[in-house]
Amino acid sequence: MSRPAAVVLLSGGLDSATVLAIAASRGFDTYCLSFDYGQRHKAELAAAARVAAAQGASKHRIVHFDLAQFGGSALTDSQIAVPVEGLQPGIPVTYVPARNTVMLSLALAWAEVLGSRDVFIGVNALDYSGYPDCRPEYIAAFEAMANLATKAAVEGARLLIHTPLIDATKADIVRMGLGLGVDYSLTVSCYQADAEGQACGVCDACRLRRKGFAEAGLADPTRYRARD
Amino acid sequence: MSRPAAVVLLSGGLDSATVLAIAASRGFDTYCLSFDYGQRHKAELAAAARVAAAQGASKHRIVHFDLAQFGGSALTDSQIAVPVEGLQPGIPVTYVPARNTVMLSLALAWAEVLGSRDVFIGVNALDYSGYPDCRPEYIAAFEAMANLATKAAVEGARLLIHTPLIDATKADIVRMGLGLGVDYSLTVSCYQADAEGQACGVCDACRLRRKGFAEAGLADPTRYRARD
Repeated sequence: MSRPAAVVLLSGGLDSATVLAIAASRGFDTYCLSFDYGQRHKAELAAAARVAAAQGASKHRIVHFDLAQFGGSALTDSQIAVPVEGLQPGIPVTYVPARNTVMLSLALAWAEVLGSRDVFIGVNALDYSGYPDCRPEYIAAFEAMANLATKAAVEGARLLIHTPLIDATKADIVRMGLGLGVDYSLTVSCYQADAEGQACGVCDACRLRRKGFAEAGLADPTRYRARD
Repeated sequence: MSRPAAVVLLSGGLDSATVLAIAASRGFDTYCLSFDYGQRHKAELAAAARVAAAQGASKHRIVHFDLAQFGGSALTDSQIAVPVEGLQPGIPVTYVPARNTVMLSLALAWAEVLGSRDVFIGVNALDYSGYPDCRPEYIAAFEAMANLATKAAVEGARLLIHTPLIDATKADIVRMGLGLGVDYSLTVSCYQADAEGQACGVCDACRLRRKGFAEAGLADPTRYRARD
């Protein structure tokens, strides 16, 4: 019997690379979806392609949509600097308006065409940046909406949004991924990675990633660029 | 006092042109959003630009995202013919997987950047094509999800999805729009309009539109192309 298909949102970072390995370990044929949404850290797209290939994904697609034309985020607007002073209380300027909603919507579209009932996303409500669209109540509401949105739903298929990292710390995530053979040297988390995928080491994404390896007591394979 | 901003999904067809006029009549500054999603009837984008200009919209944006790469619909896959035999029971092949969800998600993103709490969409549950993402229960679920998704929501702003046509017949819609001065000769509804925006007259969208004008006893300004 063929394995069921799952759509996996793959940013090319640490979390989504781990989620991809988890989806495969649960018996799914993986269809990876990445987005060129006008983000400044385009190196993550090359990382996503490397990760999908290394993990034997059935397919990897990159969908383009231009969130930069709306602006309103340090990740899509070059006029807003990426914070490098450490995590602060509240929702940071790296928040991208409605990003996970747009991404999950496109995953929903692809899942329906594939006949898949399973979407995986690496959101995480513990060691995270305070983004509202990473919270369990948000994911539950998206799933409820998705199950009214499609022809597949009307015909009785129930879509599940899998969030295997939702309660994990970054250290848990790193341990889980290494147990599944994830090669984290292929991944890029940094919000301002350079074209070669080298990380700044000081943005929130870098700090959370470093903390994960440190707390897990494991070697961090991230390539950091020389500081100014 | 300046008028509040509303994002209006504007396809360039009859329904959305009417919704734009309704939003303006309710005192909103209108920000029109159209999509180039790989649809075969690209003439609707030119129509949307004409309608936005004619009605004095504050801004009109076209966001590109490629649903055609997923396929699965007569509107995005040239291998699937647009039905021309009249409306049939069930969900037709012109259904585009998760289209309204993707579009509303992008509207949500723009609304948040604009500081707007209002999104207008011309869905219609009466004279419609049986699309699941036009039903009131779907819209309510999207609104509930949206109100957990954003920084604006966390900060207490409540987003409303306005569906002023949800219970209207096509004849009601035409009468409403003419009462508000909508010039329907600028609009294109046809699923296979030619480059000049001339309609086929026989697809479901054309049939619903013709029925609207006929039942309202009003002249239909649609330009039909010569039949084969």
